[in-house]
Amino acid sequence: MSTTRIDGVSVTPQANVYFDGKCVSHSLVFPDGTKKSVGVILPSTLTFNTGAAEIMECVAGACEWRMAGEETWQRSGAGERFSVPANARFEIRTTEPYHYICHFG
Amino acid sequence: MSTTRIDGVSVTPQANVYFDGKCVSHSLVFPDGTKKSVGVILPSTLTFNTGAAEIMECVAGACEWRMAGEETWQRSGAGERFSVPANARFEIRTTEPYHYICHFG
Repeated sequence: MSTTRIDGVSVTPQANVYFDGKCVSHSLVFPDGTKKSVGVILPSTLTFNTGAAEIMECVAGACEWRMAGEETWQRSGAGERFSVPANARFEIRTTEPYHYICHFG
Repeated sequence: MSTTRIDGVSVTPQANVYFDGKCVSHSLVFPDGTKKSVGVILPSTLTFNTGAAEIMECVAGACEWRMAGEETWQRSGAGERFSVPANARFEIRTTEPYHYICHFG
Protein backbone atom coordinates (compact mmCIF):
# COMPACT_ATOMS: atom_id res chain seq x y z
CA MET A 1 0.00 0.00 0.00
CA SER A 2 1.22 3.50 -0.75
CA THR A 3 2.30 5.86 2.00
CA THR A 4 -0.29 8.65 2.04
CA ARG A 5 1.06 10.74 4.93
CA ILE A 6 4.38 11.26 6.70
CA ASP A 7 4.00 12.60 10.24
CA GLY A 8 6.12 14.65 12.60
CA VAL A 9 8.85 15.80 10.25
CA SER A 10 10.77 18.99 9.51
CA VAL A 11 10.50 20.26 5.95
CA THR A 12 12.88 22.50 4.03
CA PRO A 13 10.53 24.85 2.17
CA GLN A 14 13.02 25.54 -0.62
CA ALA A 15 12.54 22.78 -3.21
CA ASN A 16 15.29 20.81 -4.90
CA VAL A 17 14.89 21.44 -8.64
CA TYR A 18 16.72 19.06 -10.98
CA PHE A 19 16.80 18.79 -14.78
CA ASP A 20 15.06 22.13 -15.38
CA GLY A 21 12.19 21.07 -13.14
CA LYS A 22 11.61 17.60 -14.56
CA CYS A 23 12.38 16.39 -11.01
CA VAL A 24 11.28 18.47 -8.00
CA SER A 25 11.61 17.34 -4.40
CA HIS A 26 11.35 18.65 -0.85
CA SER A 27 13.75 17.45 1.86
CA LEU A 28 12.45 16.01 5.12
CA VAL A 29 14.19 15.36 8.44
CA PHE A 30 12.72 13.02 11.05
CA PRO A 31 13.08 13.61 14.81
CA ASP A 32 15.84 10.94 14.95
CA GLY A 33 17.80 12.76 12.24
CA THR A 34 16.83 10.42 9.40
CA LYS A 35 16.60 12.23 6.07
CA LYS A 36 14.21 11.45 3.25
CA SER A 37 12.75 13.42 0.40
CA VAL A 38 9.36 13.55 -1.29
CA GLY A 39 9.34 14.36 -4.98
CA VAL A 40 7.86 14.00 -8.40
CA ILE A 41 9.39 13.21 -11.79
CA LEU A 42 7.48 14.57 -14.77
CA PRO A 43 7.39 12.76 -18.14
CA SER A 44 11.03 12.40 -19.22
CA THR A 45 14.02 10.04 -19.24
CA LEU A 46 16.60 11.10 -16.66
CA THR A 47 19.93 9.76 -15.40
CA PHE A 48 20.66 10.00 -11.67
CA ASN A 49 23.85 9.45 -9.71
CA THR A 50 23.57 8.30 -6.11
CA GLY A 51 25.80 9.29 -3.23
CA ALA A 52 24.28 7.18 -0.47
CA ALA A 53 22.22 4.13 -1.31
CA GLU A 54 18.56 4.94 -2.00
CA ILE A 55 15.24 3.17 -1.82
CA MET A 56 12.71 4.75 -4.18
CA GLU A 57 9.13 4.20 -3.00
CA CYS A 58 6.39 5.05 -5.48
CA VAL A 59 3.36 6.71 -3.89
CA ALA A 60 1.45 7.53 -7.10
CA GLY A 61 1.92 7.17 -10.84
CA ALA A 62 4.63 4.87 -12.12
CA CYS A 63 8.07 4.79 -13.71
CA GLU A 64 10.41 2.43 -15.45
CA TRP A 65 13.99 2.25 -14.22
CA ARG A 66 17.25 0.43 -14.89
CA MET A 67 20.80 0.56 -13.61
CA ALA A 68 23.40 2.03 -15.97
CA GLY A 69 24.51 -0.67 -18.39
CA GLU A 70 21.34 -2.72 -18.06
CA GLU A 71 19.17 -3.29 -21.07
CA THR A 72 15.87 -4.14 -19.46
CA TRP A 73 13.58 -1.55 -17.92
CA GLN A 74 11.69 -2.55 -14.79
CA ARG A 75 8.36 -1.02 -13.84
CA SER A 76 7.69 0.48 -10.40
CA GLY A 77 4.15 1.57 -9.56
CA ALA A 78 2.26 2.87 -6.54
CA GLY A 79 3.16 0.96 -3.38
CA GLU A 80 6.29 -0.56 -4.95
CA ARG A 81 9.95 0.15 -4.19
CA PHE A 82 13.30 -0.38 -5.78
CA SER A 83 16.79 -0.07 -4.34
CA VAL A 84 19.85 1.60 -5.81
CA PRO A 85 23.33 1.10 -4.31
CA ALA A 86 25.62 3.96 -3.24
CA ASN A 87 27.77 5.68 -5.87
CA ALA A 88 25.77 4.22 -8.72
CA ARG A 89 24.09 5.53 -11.83
CA PHE A 90 20.54 4.69 -12.85
CA GLU A 91 17.92 5.87 -15.29
CA ILE A 92 14.25 6.60 -14.75
CA ARG A 93 11.76 7.09 -17.56
CA THR A 94 8.20 8.26 -17.05
CA THR A 95 5.19 8.92 -19.23
CA GLU A 96 3.08 10.22 -16.33
CA PRO A 97 4.08 11.99 -13.09
CA TYR A 98 5.95 9.55 -10.84
CA HIS A 99 5.51 10.54 -7.19
CA TYR A 100 8.05 9.10 -4.81
CA ILE A 101 9.56 9.00 -1.35
CA CYS A 102 13.34 8.66 -1.44
CA HIS A 103 14.73 6.79 1.57
CA PHE A 104 18.48 7.11 2.02
CA GLY A 105 21.10 4.75 3.37
CA MET B 1 14.24 36.74 6.97
CA SER B 2 13.22 33.67 5.00
CA THR B 3 11.78 30.60 6.66
CA THR B 4 14.39 27.85 6.25
CA ARG B 5 12.67 25.02 8.11
CA ILE B 6 9.13 24.04 9.10
CA ASP B 7 9.01 21.66 12.07
CA GLY B 8 6.58 19.04 13.32
CA VAL B 9 4.29 18.74 10.35
CA SER B 10 2.58 15.98 8.38
CA VAL B 11 3.43 15.86 4.69
CA THR B 12 1.43 14.37 1.83
CA PRO B 13 4.08 12.65 -0.29
CA GLN B 14 2.06 12.92 -3.49
CA ALA B 15 2.87 16.32 -4.99
CA ASN B 16 0.36 18.79 -6.40
CA VAL B 17 1.35 19.32 -10.04
CA TYR B 18 -0.16 22.35 -11.79
CA PHE B 19 0.34 23.78 -15.28
CA ASP B 20 2.24 20.74 -16.61
CA GLY B 21 4.69 21.01 -13.73
CA LYS B 22 5.41 24.73 -13.92
CA CYS B 23 4.08 24.79 -10.34
CA VAL B 24 4.75 21.87 -7.98
CA SER B 25 3.83 21.84 -4.30
CA HIS B 26 3.59 19.50 -1.33
CA SER B 27 0.78 19.87 1.21
CA LEU B 28 1.53 20.21 4.93
CA VAL B 29 -0.73 19.84 7.96
CA PHE B 30 0.27 21.24 11.36
CA PRO B 31 -0.64 19.53 14.65
CA ASP B 32 -3.46 22.08 15.19
CA GLY B 33 -4.93 21.23 11.78
CA THR B 34 -3.62 24.32 9.99
CA LYS B 35 -2.84 23.61 6.34
CA LYS B 36 -0.04 25.17 4.30
CA SER B 37 1.88 24.13 1.23
CA VAL B 38 5.49 24.46 0.12
CA GLY B 39 6.10 24.82 -3.57
CA VAL B 40 8.08 26.17 -6.45
CA ILE B 41 7.06 28.00 -9.62
CA LEU B 42 9.44 27.57 -12.56
CA PRO B 43 9.99 30.32 -15.15
CA SER B 44 6.56 31.09 -16.63
CA THR B 45 3.57 33.40 -16.38
CA LEU B 46 0.65 31.68 -14.68
CA THR B 47 -2.86 32.63 -13.59
CA PHE B 48 -4.16 31.29 -10.28
CA ASN B 49 -7.63 31.27 -8.76
CA THR B 50 -7.93 31.28 -4.99
CA GLY B 51 -10.53 29.47 -2.94
CA ALA B 52 -9.52 30.59 0.54
CA ALA B 53 -7.44 33.72 1.00
CA GLU B 54 -3.71 33.08 0.69
CA ILE B 55 -0.50 34.62 1.92
CA MET B 56 2.40 33.80 -0.39
CA GLU B 57 5.74 33.86 1.44
CA CYS B 58 8.85 33.75 -0.73
CA VAL B 59 11.64 31.61 0.72
CA ALA B 60 14.05 31.77 -2.24
CA GLY B 61 14.14 33.27 -5.73
CA ALA B 62 11.62 35.91 -6.64
CA CYS B 63 8.46 36.57 -8.64
CA GLU B 64 6.35 39.39 -9.91
CA TRP B 65 2.63 39.30 -9.26
CA ARG B 66 -0.53 41.28 -9.84
CA MET B 67 -4.22 40.85 -9.22
CA ALA B 68 -6.39 40.25 -12.30
CA GLY B 69 -7.18 43.58 -13.91
CA GLU B 70 -4.16 45.36 -12.47
CA GLU B 71 -1.53 46.78 -14.80
CA THR B 72 1.43 47.01 -12.50
CA TRP B 73 3.53 44.03 -11.50
CA GLN B 74 4.87 43.97 -7.95
CA ARG B 75 8.04 42.14 -7.03
CA SER B 76 8.23 39.65 -4.15
CA GLY B 77 11.62 38.27 -3.15
CA ALA B 78 13.04 36.06 -0.41
CA GLY B 79 11.61 36.92 2.98
CA GLU B 80 8.73 38.92 1.51
CA ARG B 81 5.02 38.10 1.44
CA PHE B 82 1.95 39.17 -0.42
CA SER B 83 -1.72 38.53 0.31
CA VAL B 84 -4.46 37.46 -2.07
CA PRO B 85 -8.14 37.54 -1.05
CA ALA B 86 -10.50 34.56 -1.28
CA ASN B 87 -12.19 33.78 -4.60
CA ALA B 88 -9.80 35.99 -6.52
CA ARG B 89 -7.63 35.67 -9.59
CA PHE B 90 -4.00 36.70 -9.75
CA GLU B 91 -0.99 36.27 -12.00
CA ILE B 92 2.56 35.32 -11.14
CA ARG B 93 5.47 35.64 -13.54
CA THR B 94 8.93 34.30 -12.84
CA THR B 95 12.25 34.26 -14.64
CA GLU B 96 13.92 32.09 -11.99
CA PRO B 97 12.48 29.43 -9.66
CA TYR B 98 10.23 31.10 -7.08
CA HIS B 99 10.13 29.03 -3.90
CA TYR B 100 7.21 29.73 -1.60
CA ILE B 101 5.19 28.80 1.44
CA CYS B 102 1.46 29.24 0.87
CA HIS B 103 -0.41 30.12 4.06
CA PHE B 104 -4.19 29.75 3.77
CA GLY B 105 -7.07 31.68 5.32
